[in-house]
Amino acid sequence: MVLLSGGLDSATVLALAREQGFACHCLSFDYGQRHRVELAAAELVARAGGASSWRTAMLDLRAFGGSALTAELAVPKDRSHEAMGADIPLTYVPARNTIFLAFALGLAEVNQSRALFFGANAVDYSGYPDCRPAFVAAFEELANLATKLGVTAATPAERIRVHAPLIGLSKAQIVREGTRLGVDYALTWSCYDPVPAGDGQGRHGPWAACGRCDSCALRRRGFVEAGVPDPTRYVAR
Amino acid sequence: MVLLSGGLDSATVLALAREQGFACHCLSFDYGQRHRVELAAAELVARAGGASSWRTAMLDLRAFGGSALTAELAVPKDRSHEAMGADIPLTYVPARNTIFLAFALGLAEVNQSRALFFGANAVDYSGYPDCRPAFVAAFEELANLATKLGVTAATPAERIRVHAPLIGLSKAQIVREGTRLGVDYALTWSCYDPVPAGDGQGRHGPWAACGRCDSCALRRRGFVEAGVPDPTRYVAR
Repeated sequence: MVLLSGGLDSATVLALAREQGFACHCLSFDYGQRHRVELAAAELVARAGGASSWRTAMLDLRAFGGSALTAELAVPKDRSHEAMGADIPLTYVPARNTIFLAFALGLAEVNQSRALFFGANAVDYSGYPDCRPAFVAAFEELANLATKLGVTAATPAERIRVHAPLIGLSKAQIVREGTRLGVDYALTWSCYDPVPAGDGQGRHGPWAACGRCDSCALRRRGFVEAGVPDPTRYVAR
Repeated sequence: MVLLSGGLDSATVLALAREQGFACHCLSFDYGQRHRVELAAAELVARAGGASSWRTAMLDLRAFGGSALTAELAVPKDRSHEAMGADIPLTYVPARNTIFLAFALGLAEVNQSRALFFGANAVDYSGYPDCRPAFVAAFEELANLATKLGVTAATPAERIRVHAPLIGLSKAQIVREGTRLGVDYALTWSCYDPVPAGDGQGRHGPWAACGRCDSCALRRRGFVEAGVPDPTRYVAR
């Protein structure tokens, strides 16, 4: 089970899981995010990345409010790298990764899949608490207590594992790793605040990336630091 | 935050939380369960139980399949008490309580609520792995790592707590406790396999409880053992 947002990180995770020989079932979420264009990107990424299946689960997190990703709050722009790491930003969606992993766990149990792949990243993690190693370890522990699949594991090898292969990598390292694996980053989508681009000529139809939200800033910096050309169409340069 | 299914256990949990002085926000789930009548019961229970709010979240767990509660599998009937405890039954929904608690956690964070109440019950738990004390403890640990609310807790008293006040009680003890607190069990719904009752005269409109599924069997036995009259309208007696 691969959690696939359609962004740079999860596209790289899919490539890493495929390299390790896993048959990959991908799961994306339509949670009322303002950047729903990432779902079309996820489908492109799943096809190009050799996924065995791809599905989208509907979750109405808008009922929660409380985040600039789902509510009518402005997405923060032009923040420094230091400011991004210093606090938990408005784009944090309450308990999002817990909810996503819980769904993936349910589907994993149905599929008898013991491996969950998750693109959490603690280096350029933009201050989200649910992207840290301690969170991933706690979820793995929970998964093995919560499910028939985990409880009936006869050996350590049969335990459910939550793989977070990017957790110790910088964005630049992720870009290099994905480039090595042939990930087509032009298919991926990172921007929290898509901007109409007018011509419809890009890989994402009429949408371009804003270039200024935290997610765009981390992505741009990652390509620059990796020394890899950035194929993203940004509005602001 | 009180997870309120509309059943006997969660109605008792609401009464216990109210007794402890909590203002209670209740959350129910419409997850494609075949016994959706429990949602109407949950609303009755929330009103009668003095809840501050009640809401239903839509979750389409039918996409998972794999359970007699949501898929087109027959609900097991007439199982002995021993058989119920011996294995994980078909009515188990993959990762259901993990998903439910994850949603409650998101809403708790929005509301700045540090207490999640949950009617897990390990004595008459019908073999579900996600109703055991170890699962509850693991989720509490996760909650404090996963959220801004948990991560920013300055003192142990500010940590998020998952309260499972029924976890060590038998069904009979739960019935006695709820009876002491004035819970109107006629409003609650437990049956996994509602049967049309024809006359529409009950508290649950045209539906009666089957009397034979695991949930009915545990409920009936609980009232008998508690020596409390059972107000449930069963089809099979």
